Amino acid sequence: MADQDAHTVEGRHATELPAIRWEEPPEGPVLVLLDQTRLPAEEVELVCTDAPALVEAIRSLAVRGAPLLGIAGAYGVALAAARGFDVDEAAVALQGARPTAVNLSVGVRRAQAAHRAVLTEGGDPQQAAAAALAAALALHREDAEASARMAGHGLALLDELLPGGGHRILTHCNTGSLVSGGEGTAFAVALAAHRKGQLRRLWVDETRPLLQGARLTAYEAARSGMAYTLLTDNAAGSLFAAGEVDAVLIGADRIAADGSVANKVGSYPLAVLARYHHVPFIVVAPVTTVDPDTPDGASIEVEQRPGFEVTEITAARVSIGGAGGGVPVAPLGTQVYNPAFDVTPPELVTAIVTEAGVVSPVTAAALADLLSGQVAQPLEA
Amino acid sequence: MADQDAHTVEGRHATELPAIRWEEPPEGPVLVLLDQTRLPAEEVELVCTDAPALVEAIRSLAVRGAPLLGIAGAYGVALAAARGFDVDEAAVALQGARPTAVNLSVGVRRAQAAHRAVLTEGGDPQQAAAAALAAALALHREDAEASARMAGHGLALLDELLPGGGHRILTHCNTGSLVSGGEGTAFAVALAAHRKGQLRRLWVDETRPLLQGARLTAYEAARSGMAYTLLTDNAAGSLFAAGEVDAVLIGADRIAADGSVANKVGSYPLAVLARYHHVPFIVVAPVTTVDPDTPDGASIEVEQRPGFEVTEITAARVSIGGAGGGVPVAPLGTQVYNPAFDVTPPELVTAIVTEAGVVSPVTAAALADLLSGQVAQPLEA
Repeated sequence: MADQDAHTVEGRHATELPAIRWEEPPEGPVLVLLDQTRLPAEEVELVCTDAPALVEAIRSLAVRGAPLLGIAGAYGVALAAARGFDVDEAAVALQGARPTAVNLSVGVRRAQAAHRAVLTEGGDPQQAAAAALAAALALHREDAEASARMAGHGLALLDELLPGGGHRILTHCNTGSLVSGGEGTAFAVALAAHRKGQLRRLWVDETRPLLQGARLTAYEAARSGMAYTLLTDNAAGSLFAAGEVDAVLIGADRIAADGSVANKVGSYPLAVLARYHHVPFIVVAPVTTVDPDTPDGASIEVEQRPGFEVTEITAARVSIGGAGGGVPVAPLGTQVYNPAFDVTPPELVTAIVTEAGVVSPVTAAALADLLSGQVAQPLEA
Repeated sequence: MADQDAHTVEGRHATELPAIRWEEPPEGPVLVLLDQTRLPAEEVELVCTDAPALVEAIRSLAVRGAPLLGIAGAYGVALAAARGFDVDEAAVALQGARPTAVNLSVGVRRAQAAHRAVLTEGGDPQQAAAAALAAALALHREDAEASARMAGHGLALLDELLPGGGHRILTHCNTGSLVSGGEGTAFAVALAAHRKGQLRRLWVDETRPLLQGARLTAYEAARSGMAYTLLTDNAAGSLFAAGEVDAVLIGADRIAADGSVANKVGSYPLAVLARYHHVPFIVVAPVTTVDPDTPDGASIEVEQRPGFEVTEITAARVSIGGAGGGVPVAPLGTQVYNPAFDVTPPELVTAIVTEAGVVSPVTAAALADLLSGQVAQPLEA
């Protein structure tokens, strides 16, 4: 099972938070995770020496975020192979750790397929393990490269839309290196602007109910040395009214074929505020987020999450009372409307930034062109 | 000092929450308060036998809300007089309990003036005490009557705007009997609709950062037997998009002469969403909220509140760690934008409902007419 050792994270770059990394110390290969459940209070690394330890880390949300889960899953298969465990058994356990996470399953299967191919072709277990690791490293690298390209395209777009520089960017939820093999999506664009000295301020929505903005984005912004300010989600209106927001940058959970964007609840109100105040509303997401099988926003089923996320307050090191283990802040039996995400129609989206380029204005035809370009040149990606 | 006894509140009416009441048991007059700091978990009454006990209750926010503080202050003077304490000393202490609460000071001075007038005219202390109590009871009754009139005007307006009935009303913050001598402002209108069988659902914004919606409005809605649902402030956008909101009803802290409405932060984004979705946005407030000396929204100075309200989570019976006594949920040193309220311009306000009538459309001229009518007939109010 997992060793856990608490020490300060030694980033290779001051602004790089290694949410996940593969290491090969003399006692054998390990997968090292930044425990996201302890942020921002503590930076603690979890060292996984086998797949069950990683399954536990995935279940406890120590590692989270769609792209990062895919990378973790692939590494988990590589770890089982390198340590001589049953790879297919590990793959089943990893996929079952969060059954609805599509990326996790995709990552697991990619490493598993690489492993199996070598064995089928007569390779030995060591060669097969090396192939699984190579698949995981490739997935990790591809994700980092996609981040870097999104950041480049996004920064160019900001320069075009806001030629004066000194950007004041509002963001929602958590889209940085904690959910990515690289520097993330929307956050990566803000970070690129910061590095060029063009970010005047990052406005960070706290992002109720789970406070990913307060807990994680503020942490990433602080680590990166950005000028940032936290606010309650409902205070964004005052910022727009005061002319303090130059652009909104958010990520996406899914983008329908017509350009409708499903993202963390609270994104749509920002889009309406941005439109009312003539501020660009920019979505940053990898091409894989675009789902051609979802024709439009109305086809996206919005998952309702448990009410206790709203009726109870939970925080690290506090666990008292309620059904969700938190402190009740509403009357017992209160009914809750707690959608996981909301849907922003394409007419409110100024641009969608992907690693393959920028779509603006956002139309079904432009997105289809982007996807077909992507499919036609898969090896260039 | 105050006795505190915990017992279930015995309301005269199932939907009436006695936030404050004067009682005269054999052992002497007392002021009984519902302790709002313990809601919604517990309904505990504080029995104040002297002014210092009330000062403590005001300081601890056991009693809060602009109109209610005025009533409490007047009763506090009456209590000091009835119990034979120094009335002027009590008045100074009560006004100092929350120096920025204008209503508190107004209420204290009204009872104090009534007390002094009797003494000046040669009355005895007992007659003066009776006059102070009469002034407090009059203020209490006037506030309750204003609530009732606002509810009546508001309900008529809803019937006019939404002739189909079955209203689905979204509200923000806490505007019911917990902040009023009667049934409140915006909440009183929703309650009137409920009693007529015309309220299909009350959508309750949790109202970050202090969660007055979750803690107090949900409590009032539950006690009143309303169909209500709690949501995070940022989930309101999804409700509008789904066509689930027929009208927004909110209160006001201050209304400028041009009709700009200062109210709890998060009100303005609702106004923008309501406009985008063609939903009426209705402000309910007593005439005293209109400040003719504040010409417009830009003249309203927005108070910034402490950052720890956002960076720390506090809840009853939890007090750990942070500067504000709560649990930190953001990195140490995080800068916070935490405006106490926001300002909605008159062009986004469908109507302002007061006890003296409804202003719609909201213009400086219409508000001036309302005020002058009010000033011309002060004794009819």
